[in-house]
Amino acid sequence: MKSYRLEHDCIGEREVPCECYYGIQTLRAAENYKISNIPISHYPQLIDSLAYIKMAAAQANCELGLLEEDKSKHITLACEKILEGKYYDQFVVDVIQGGAGTSTNMCANEVIANLGLEGMGHRCGEYEFLHPNIDVNMSQSTNDVYPTAMRITLIAKIRQLIEAMAFLKKSFEKKAEEFKDIIKMGRTQLQDAVPMTLGQEFSVYAVMLGEDMMRLQETTDLVREINMGATAIGTGLNAHPEYADLVTEKLSNLLGINLVKAENLVEATQDTGAYVQLSGVLKRVAVKVSKICNDLRLMSSGPRCGFNEINLPPMAPGSSIMPGKVNPVIPEVVNQACFYVVGADMTVTMACGAGQLELNVMEPVIAHSLFSSLMYLHNAFETLATRCIDGITANEDVCRNYVRNSIGLVTALNPYIGYEKSTEVAHEALASGTSVYDIVLAKGYMKKEDLDDILSPENMIKPRYFHKKD
Amino acid sequence: MKSYRLEHDCIGEREVPCECYYGIQTLRAAENYKISNIPISHYPQLIDSLAYIKMAAAQANCELGLLEEDKSKHITLACEKILEGKYYDQFVVDVIQGGAGTSTNMCANEVIANLGLEGMGHRCGEYEFLHPNIDVNMSQSTNDVYPTAMRITLIAKIRQLIEAMAFLKKSFEKKAEEFKDIIKMGRTQLQDAVPMTLGQEFSVYAVMLGEDMMRLQETTDLVREINMGATAIGTGLNAHPEYADLVTEKLSNLLGINLVKAENLVEATQDTGAYVQLSGVLKRVAVKVSKICNDLRLMSSGPRCGFNEINLPPMAPGSSIMPGKVNPVIPEVVNQACFYVVGADMTVTMACGAGQLELNVMEPVIAHSLFSSLMYLHNAFETLATRCIDGITANEDVCRNYVRNSIGLVTALNPYIGYEKSTEVAHEALASGTSVYDIVLAKGYMKKEDLDDILSPENMIKPRYFHKKD
Amino acid sequence: MKSYRLEHDCIGEREVPCECYYGIQTLRAAENYKISNIPISHYPQLIDSLAYIKMAAAQANCELGLLEEDKSKHITLACEKILEGKYYDQFVVDVIQGGAGTSTNMCANEVIANLGLEGMGHRCGEYEFLHPNIDVNMSQSTNDVYPTAMRITLIAKIRQLIEAMAFLKKSFEKKAEEFKDIIKMGRTQLQDAVPMTLGQEFSVYAVMLGEDMMRLQETTDLVREINMGATAIGTGLNAHPEYADLVTEKLSNLLGINLVKAENLVEATQDTGAYVQLSGVLKRVAVKVSKICNDLRLMSSGPRCGFNEINLPPMAPGSSIMPGKVNPVIPEVVNQACFYVVGADMTVTMACGAGQLELNVMEPVIAHSLFSSLMYLHNAFETLATRCIDGITANEDVCRNYVRNSIGLVTALNPYIGYEKSTEVAHEALASGTSVYDIVLAKGYMKKEDLDDILSPENMIKPRYFHKKD
Amino acid sequence: MKSYRLEHDCIGEREVPCECYYGIQTLRAAENYKISNIPISHYPQLIDSLAYIKMAAAQANCELGLLEEDKSKHITLACEKILEGKYYDQFVVDVIQGGAGTSTNMCANEVIANLGLEGMGHRCGEYEFLHPNIDVNMSQSTNDVYPTAMRITLIAKIRQLIEAMAFLKKSFEKKAEEFKDIIKMGRTQLQDAVPMTLGQEFSVYAVMLGEDMMRLQETTDLVREINMGATAIGTGLNAHPEYADLVTEKLSNLLGINLVKAENLVEATQDTGAYVQLSGVLKRVAVKVSKICNDLRLMSSGPRCGFNEINLPPMAPGSSIMPGKVNPVIPEVVNQACFYVVGADMTVTMACGAGQLELNVMEPVIAHSLFSSLMYLHNAFETLATRCIDGITANEDVCRNYVRNSIGLVTALNPYIGYEKSTEVAHEALASGTSVYDIVLAKGYMKKEDLDDILSPENMIKPRYFHKKD
Repeated sequence: MKSYRLEHDCIGEREVPCECYYGIQTLRAAENYKISNIPISHYPQLIDSLAYIKMAAAQANCELGLLEEDKSKHITLACEKILEGKYYDQFVVDVIQGGAGTSTNMCANEVIANLGLEGMGHRCGEYEFLHPNIDVNMSQSTNDVYPTAMRITLIAKIRQLIEAMAFLKKSFEKKAEEFKDIIKMGRTQLQDAVPMTLGQEFSVYAVMLGEDMMRLQETTDLVREINMGATAIGTGLNAHPEYADLVTEKLSNLLGINLVKAENLVEATQDTGAYVQLSGVLKRVAVKVSKICNDLRLMSSGPRCGFNEINLPPMAPGSSIMPGKVNPVIPEVVNQACFYVVGADMTVTMACGAGQLELNVMEPVIAHSLFSSLMYLHNAFETLATRCIDGITANEDVCRNYVRNSIGLVTALNPYIGYEKSTEVAHEALASGTSVYDIVLAKGYMKKEDLDDILSPENMIKPRYFHKKD
Repeated sequence: MKSYRLEHDCIGEREVPCECYYGIQTLRAAENYKISNIPISHYPQLIDSLAYIKMAAAQANCELGLLEEDKSKHITLACEKILEGKYYDQFVVDVIQGGAGTSTNMCANEVIANLGLEGMGHRCGEYEFLHPNIDVNMSQSTNDVYPTAMRITLIAKIRQLIEAMAFLKKSFEKKAEEFKDIIKMGRTQLQDAVPMTLGQEFSVYAVMLGEDMMRLQETTDLVREINMGATAIGTGLNAHPEYADLVTEKLSNLLGINLVKAENLVEATQDTGAYVQLSGVLKRVAVKVSKICNDLRLMSSGPRCGFNEINLPPMAPGSSIMPGKVNPVIPEVVNQACFYVVGADMTVTMACGAGQLELNVMEPVIAHSLFSSLMYLHNAFETLATRCIDGITANEDVCRNYVRNSIGLVTALNPYIGYEKSTEVAHEALASGTSVYDIVLAKGYMKKEDLDDILSPENMIKPRYFHKKD
Repeated sequence: MKSYRLEHDCIGEREVPCECYYGIQTLRAAENYKISNIPISHYPQLIDSLAYIKMAAAQANCELGLLEEDKSKHITLACEKILEGKYYDQFVVDVIQGGAGTSTNMCANEVIANLGLEGMGHRCGEYEFLHPNIDVNMSQSTNDVYPTAMRITLIAKIRQLIEAMAFLKKSFEKKAEEFKDIIKMGRTQLQDAVPMTLGQEFSVYAVMLGEDMMRLQETTDLVREINMGATAIGTGLNAHPEYADLVTEKLSNLLGINLVKAENLVEATQDTGAYVQLSGVLKRVAVKVSKICNDLRLMSSGPRCGFNEINLPPMAPGSSIMPGKVNPVIPEVVNQACFYVVGADMTVTMACGAGQLELNVMEPVIAHSLFSSLMYLHNAFETLATRCIDGITANEDVCRNYVRNSIGLVTALNPYIGYEKSTEVAHEALASGTSVYDIVLAKGYMKKEDLDDILSPENMIKPRYFHKKD
Repeated sequence: MKSYRLEHDCIGEREVPCECYYGIQTLRAAENYKISNIPISHYPQLIDSLAYIKMAAAQANCELGLLEEDKSKHITLACEKILEGKYYDQFVVDVIQGGAGTSTNMCANEVIANLGLEGMGHRCGEYEFLHPNIDVNMSQSTNDVYPTAMRITLIAKIRQLIEAMAFLKKSFEKKAEEFKDIIKMGRTQLQDAVPMTLGQEFSVYAVMLGEDMMRLQETTDLVREINMGATAIGTGLNAHPEYADLVTEKLSNLLGINLVKAENLVEATQDTGAYVQLSGVLKRVAVKVSKICNDLRLMSSGPRCGFNEINLPPMAPGSSIMPGKVNPVIPEVVNQACFYVVGADMTVTMACGAGQLELNVMEPVIAHSLFSSLMYLHNAFETLATRCIDGITANEDVCRNYVRNSIGLVTALNPYIGYEKSTEVAHEALASGTSVYDIVLAKGYMKKEDLDDILSPENMIKPRYFHKKD
């Protein structure tokens, strides 16, 4: 019994293993592209997006009288099977591929055609009854299908990332509340500056994340613009005049997302601006979370020879040689995820700049870079929240003593004794090792009660009406 | 007669040349920072921004009863003199500087104090009458003044860039209209695809720029958020509780811009997210204009051995050795400006990621990178519009003949003769060198009148109701 | 029957599944780091490198009298089992991990200890007989083991990449020979310049690759410097004074590679300069191969509306909608691999810049970035050679006609009729559409026989003694 | 009296101000390119390089009998005048320019022609006696002159940078010697690790710089390969067969540098690999010096709430609001210069990737990026040495107390009491706040004399023969 079926395309004929739902073009693609050894099924949401698109297109074509009802039905059923997740293993093409995603689109066309054929009672490869190009790809082109699938996938992944950010934000907010009465020194340029609370420190991180969530949400508006109906270059050649609107509407309904047909389809087909911008926003998110992790590592430095203001929960023995050492491993791994995102942004930039005339053929590496950045950040944020932030404890005494001993306190005396005398006090404190408090009293610059009032922690962490002391 | 006056700061004493309005701290800064040899006066808008801030602060402090009216008046007069542009040469500090911009702020404080002293009838350096720190810098810190000055400057520069983009967009729109009836081949992956008009090609560029203008406009909302009143780390230590709102309002009024006080001043003082995002959007703009320039260079390649679809206006003899050669020098220089912007984005990213705890000390190189990117793009766009796009002419016959001879025409026959027969025609045309038109007729696949209808240029550049030919 | 064994570390106790050769620390690491979902076994050469290191260390420790002979023997046997490839699945830690590679090192220590215990007739987890830290990790620290494993892996991967480059270089050289008599126009700035041969074009690519191979070979010298014996920070605390030299020698012998002990181990332990430089060289390679691919796509543009000088072998149907279209899919996928490498270089740069004091904790993401870049380039080059270059054919007539019709020919007349007359001829040719040849004759600027001599292709593609024509 | 002379080129006629030595093409270029507003004279070494090239070419042409002796003499004299530095102001073209440097080359040709004409007793613009293209540019093309000028300039700038590095290295070495007996804690992952000396810390920086100097020196070998004689595309069209070798020799002699003629001139003319690699090495240097500056800022953090191990010399008052604050402004400005270099590397990468076929037209922005990176680093290193490193003092007591109190000491006990007991001691020390020393004694794990021996600072900073204590 034959274990292969014969298929042909414009290059020639090939044997395709009988058990494969994909066909000759997928076979060629799997042979042609062996770069990353990561198949497109690594991103199941991308496969789902393709299934939704093919379903919407079939239904639109059917409604416009272009596709027979039976074919439309069986395409729809095939897509539903894919959405159940059982056929992801048929999507074997490398995530990095030539041809602007043609292999990804054709893989979907072939798998759907064969699943459809099976449903119709035919055998795989009997394309005269349901054809990958003529029927499944009807009114479509890789140049509209592929970017649309990318965008739907991005919308889903952005939503997941925002959820992880909200989750992490709550962790920071809890700590901000927990630490709201712990006074500590603020530092600028790594030098002692003026007092603040540890709660303020953590609330800043929550606020930052909140802003980033808004920025990320805004990118969704850029990504929801699709170019279905563009066909080859955006002119809509071979597409029914009502098709573009109809397929966009059907796809929106299937997904429950408000997709929008791009105003100028020729522009939309070649434009990758939304990807550069989304990547830039992901880089922004990465840079800021990386900074937060740097801060966490600084504040927990020690235990004896560092800042030692906070303790991160121990997650792993810190060293194969140094007993008892516990390292800030979770912030460290998050830093590295962030560095990955910055690098991926550069890949996206290079790829987006390489578009030529009516198409940007480099979309597959753009998709891979954006998908992986979104995934890495998502994973990193969940990890950071549950395995680090939630378990942080504060060394309240250490924090308080820093403030008490600090020279930066003198800043609060500026309005009372002036910048020049304050400077003098600061210098003397530094040279002698004694405290600002003692020096000011010794020099008789202020009365004790005034000094106590001004230097009380709760008075130094916010603006305050100035009361002339005398 | 002495040509120097003595000034002192917390480091010690120095002689300052009498003719200088700047003081000891600026002197030290000029000596300390000799990296780029570009002084901050290279960006006059930054100096103006500082003047406006100092003016607003003096007036707010005066209104709150913290600063004597006479001092406020003379600070305001000094700032106005700076705004007249005559004292830019006093701003001698290198654009790349340590200290998070302290030298830039202190330079403004010193110049304003001395101009103010002069106005009050005193001599430069008699700071007991008007003090750079106590009076001019009252209620302020470098950490709120410097980023606020950056942001005001960015708003002005973004506005100018958007104007240049609008200007360039009009140039593209004029060409889109002029070329709207010239039929040409669209190309995907540098291979002949399907027909379009040269007008469509240029209208795409106009649409792209229009979108980028909107994205850039949106960044203004991020940049208008300022942190005046934050003082050292955002806690507002030493600032009057009503000061932050008041100075923001006064500054908004002076500038005629709607500035907004950041909700969380501690966060705002350390956050550089807006810069990363703005830089990302500038990169987006750069990447897309670079792509447009690549297209222009492709379409004008030749004259005999390239695409030769359009002619760029000759702006310079093209070669020191090849007579008569004329090169696409304007797109080339714009490409290079765009590459600069991509690099500057990386500098911004590195610098923004280097913030620690309550401050990002790397702001000066962020400012320099963003200001120069905005300036380069602005200059590049004006140059591109006036010295290239406006003078472009089309080789209409070349464009038309490409369509006529192209094999890609066969795509339009798909709905009528099917994908497989179309493929056969394409192959035969390629092998034999004859036209699709002739082959289809010879094979009797379609009637001449139907073929003429389908392949008429005006029918191939947009969606179309399908009429079954028989 | 219990399916778990109990293990403990300084954090606490955990159940480890009986069938696992890895232990508690690997278990924790697998839970802590879920970023990329790519395990370190994705790079089998890294696992092998660890096995060689542990083997060399055990033998050195044994020779120095620090480790019992029996333990050394069983560590060696365990490492040999790993090198047979059957235990890669035990290396489950994510490639992106915190802790500077501690989890990778401890995973190796645990797997080797348990394989060794098994060999000794004990059960997994009975560490009193062979301890992951005390015995397997003796005289070592993650901070010397991990970078050494990275470097050995890099050496292997660099060698493989160079082999792929040599392979690709041969493909270019064959085409250079095949096309050595095909005259074509050279182009500068995409404008017609002066003649050359298609063979010269391809020989350039071979020469480029040859240079890059040398540059890549040079990086091996940077990478062969290792820091075994450094222990925690390079001071060699707890290491026998003769250990560093001995283990380096043993490891060199095991691998057949000339490894070198770094001169200053404190420096070597924190220094990541070699990684930045290697990454920079990989970027160089990527940028240049990307340029070659761009050229291939340009020269094969068309078939009717482009340069059409060469034909790439068709590897895949080019379009899901445009029949007969064949795209340059192999150069396209290579371009994308190259963009990945440029992005990865940025990740490496960020990570290398993030080292602090005695260690760079970001090494895991550096390793992942370098390993994947090396792998992607290797795969891309093999693909490019076998699936593209080897099958390229030339359109000799097209190439020759370009030269014949070109205006750039006039450059060759410079020495005879002067730059100004040449310019005049060029302009007239461009305006009238006639050939340079005809115009020169018509104007009587040269005799026909002289013109034929000067403009004969073989005379225009190299320097030539000037013979005054008269 | 006329203040303009008329000049013409292939575009048309223009009035050139009489006082200008540059001509019509420079005039056009100055108008066409207004991007950065930085003229090429910003890099005087570039102008000098052009002068040397033109001199060498004239002499070679003369020797080959192609150029009259008188013309050669006056070209040489003109070049010598330029080398005296008085005519730099004639080089007005923007550093960012289209045309692959044609404007820079033509500017040199025109200025030299007019200076030569003046020397011959003619007036500017009387090119019939000495022509910019025919005589000054004889046997040359921008495509060989411009990259050669870049390379000569790079060699000079690399040499200067290496000198600055040697200077900085000495500063580090002096401190390494000065601090060689100060014991301190080493830190990995910002956590206390094991002891070392402050001298070791600084010696590492010296070693790092030493390695980078070697790597930088190696790039000189890549840069010394030039393509004079290539003319338009490397085929040497119009050049005398002996010219390439002769001009290379003459230029080498004039400069006292061993320049090498590239083996394949077609390859050399389009190849920018050396620039990518040099830029990558500059990035390496920047990344590592940036890391050193980060360390300096960490070690000097405080004075009361940070590490406080060293004091940087105060170079500027640290704050406009916080009296007595002194910031690490010099490391900060060096960090920023380094970020610039990383960004410039990206610009270089983009530009080098944009080469097409026989030329990379983006060379001007590559030159600008490399020249400025070299200059910034040079300035930064001189500043760092003289204004920071030389003035660093150590807080010896602070350093010593860290070691005494640290838990990391326990690592040294590993070989004597084992990893598990060491861990127990570490945990107890951390929990109770007491010292490792006291706990070990209290538990009776070791005798006091053994403990004193093992924990004596001089025994912990290097490998040591193990003596079993009992």
